[in-house]
Amino acid sequence: MPLDFTDDAAAEASTSGRATILEKHLMTVFLRAMHRPSIAVELWGGERLYEGDGEPEITVRIKTRRALWGLLSNPDLNFGDRYSDGTIEVLGDLYRFIEIASARRPQAVSDTSAFVRLQTVLGKGRPRRNTLSASKENIHHHYDLSNDFYSLWLDRDHMQYTCAYYPSADMTIEQSQAAKLHHVCRKLQLREGDEVIEAGCGWGGLARFMAREYGARVRAYNISHQQILFARDKAREQGLDDRVKYVEDDYRNATGECDVFVSVGMLEHVGTANYRSLGVVVDRCLRPDGRGLIHSIGRNRPRPMNRWIEKRIFPGAYPPTLKEMATIFEPFNFSVLDVENLRLHYALTLEHWLQRFEENIAKVRDLFDERFVRAWRLYLTGSIAAFRLGDLQLFQVVFSRGESNEVPMTREHLYR
Amino acid sequence: MPLDFTDDAAAEASTSGRATILEKHLMTVFLRAMHRPSIAVELWGGERLYEGDGEPEITVRIKTRRALWGLLSNPDLNFGDRYSDGTIEVLGDLYRFIEIASARRPQAVSDTSAFVRLQTVLGKGRPRRNTLSASKENIHHHYDLSNDFYSLWLDRDHMQYTCAYYPSADMTIEQSQAAKLHHVCRKLQLREGDEVIEAGCGWGGLARFMAREYGARVRAYNISHQQILFARDKAREQGLDDRVKYVEDDYRNATGECDVFVSVGMLEHVGTANYRSLGVVVDRCLRPDGRGLIHSIGRNRPRPMNRWIEKRIFPGAYPPTLKEMATIFEPFNFSVLDVENLRLHYALTLEHWLQRFEENIAKVRDLFDERFVRAWRLYLTGSIAAFRLGDLQLFQVVFSRGESNEVPMTREHLYR
Repeated sequence: MPLDFTDDAAAEASTSGRATILEKHLMTVFLRAMHRPSIAVELWGGERLYEGDGEPEITVRIKTRRALWGLLSNPDLNFGDRYSDGTIEVLGDLYRFIEIASARRPQAVSDTSAFVRLQTVLGKGRPRRNTLSASKENIHHHYDLSNDFYSLWLDRDHMQYTCAYYPSADMTIEQSQAAKLHHVCRKLQLREGDEVIEAGCGWGGLARFMAREYGARVRAYNISHQQILFARDKAREQGLDDRVKYVEDDYRNATGECDVFVSVGMLEHVGTANYRSLGVVVDRCLRPDGRGLIHSIGRNRPRPMNRWIEKRIFPGAYPPTLKEMATIFEPFNFSVLDVENLRLHYALTLEHWLQRFEENIAKVRDLFDERFVRAWRLYLTGSIAAFRLGDLQLFQVVFSRGESNEVPMTREHLYR
Repeated sequence: MPLDFTDDAAAEASTSGRATILEKHLMTVFLRAMHRPSIAVELWGGERLYEGDGEPEITVRIKTRRALWGLLSNPDLNFGDRYSDGTIEVLGDLYRFIEIASARRPQAVSDTSAFVRLQTVLGKGRPRRNTLSASKENIHHHYDLSNDFYSLWLDRDHMQYTCAYYPSADMTIEQSQAAKLHHVCRKLQLREGDEVIEAGCGWGGLARFMAREYGARVRAYNISHQQILFARDKAREQGLDDRVKYVEDDYRNATGECDVFVSVGMLEHVGTANYRSLGVVVDRCLRPDGRGLIHSIGRNRPRPMNRWIEKRIFPGAYPPTLKEMATIFEPFNFSVLDVENLRLHYALTLEHWLQRFEENIAKVRDLFDERFVRAWRLYLTGSIAAFRLGDLQLFQVVFSRGESNEVPMTREHLYR
């Protein structure tokens, strides 16, 4: 069997004829390595494979030979690609399928099974580097998709594409994103007249919120051209352009002093090799009594990003552990004051996003195509599972300079 | 000048005659390396050295040649020893002296000055290892001093020799220690019937509090014989001995399952080399939906313990950074839910302790001697400065298993 069946760029393989004995055997080994989940596999010729007990909860239809070999050789990457192009279908609840598959992912189960050895032979890629130019390309890939697209399913008031905060579970996404923005500002003890540097500002919602609600003056950095244009328009519309300045540049080029340094949802795109540089920027800018907050998706232990997400959705992304994040703080004697893990809030946030995404599915299909719709459905659903199952964390870290005693004694002020 | 003047065990040197030109020169270099602080030095022959501007705030009297050479060769260690034996005196406010000296400690100022080179030649010791037997010896050194001694100045209700919690600054030490115990129990969502393992229980105050106030059942480990005897007596007196079991053993020998794993003020004595073993113990004992809390003195960046404190007060002690603490959590996929830095609360706690210590100074002198009184005055005062100036941190880390969703959505419940 030629190995390039497993390559994205490979020509579509013939699916004429039924699956071979080898193909059925390897797929059976795969299901056994997954500890015989309640998942049946239906192949293109109609053959049905099932190793579990009782009735299967889910059936996965593998419609081409290429999809089967892709799944065997690099399931993380190729499941996503073949699900997106429709040559793999999931009959039943997609979330439930991901939940079962995540818990029993063969890599976690056994390093000696046939397909894992096969994967090793085929090799795996590495995450892309985040040099200044590569960062721009990586960010363009995701955030410049189109403002119209994100407007369809993010909250309408602040266009927050980061974890919301649910002090009560029945909040709308508009309410929970506003609550998140307040939570961040309170953690930063944001005051009238404070000068803020924001690294990675998205569509500028936090910067405008800080200016309007707290009277802050904000310089907000972003390398996504479309987001910067959107952010500037909004600031002008809302009469905030005297207090909020959106800078189309890398955060590493930030200059001047600030009372507050904030970064919400950028660190995932920075790459651990650049954490020290981020610390250098904060150390250069933050005033002696300044406060800082970094909000980022994270991990309990170091693991590579899911290959499909890293390749198709978020090029260059890597969620760090708290230990890895320490590289931002320790060399500069920053004092970590408060860490909050909002993992389950991100699962709720993503459920709201997915619901609105599905409500607007026809418009998304018009903007892109069916393949895009399926890829994003998988990404949003898979992300809910990752946060719910504890594969991903959400860390909000508050810090100050080590010498500053201008820090609150307790965190009670966050809950008044 | 023989080098063993700088050795603790060296015979007392002759102080007949005035200081030599070399001695006065080196002391002047020392003051310059400290950036000419507002501190005057008065030598045994009456000579006065001063490099600062204006009137000195503090005068340090160096009463013997041995004290001078000790200070030059290893100031961290020998200042403490010579202050304790009275051959160095501080005329003026001791706290203010430590504040000035900490900010301008020559090591921080210059690595090339004469006395730093001298120190390098003389060498410095390493912290003691924390094997099971060495731990016992280290802990005996400090905690078995005498229960009567600690009773003189710790809070009367719970005998807490760890950082208190001051939701309001005017609390008594009894109130703030009770507030700390509640804060810890709330962070752990402690419930009626919960089984708790406590690693390093001191005089058993937290264990009794958990049993009495929350209805928990606690197994509390400690290797200090005197503390265990005290703890058992108190539990019997209070009718809690059916729910609290004090085990005179190393936490590494803890067995059985628990809903809650808690350790308040032990990690400082564990040593980074043993953090993984601590993780093993927690991983072995904690139930799937269990909660954990570790409360420890810490650092913003790795630095050795002050040599004098490590040698005379707390053998084997080392305050870790959050990055170092991650070694407890990451290998076992524990999820860090909450980190709070209570540094300034420890400064307040120590102020209360010092005040009560001074009020009982005659009794302390009767129990020990003047040297002990002076050593502990320096230790308590120096610790206030270390927390106030940001040299030391106090981290409370709450964690759960990575797979557990039985975690509170917000921290609001801590502040009701």
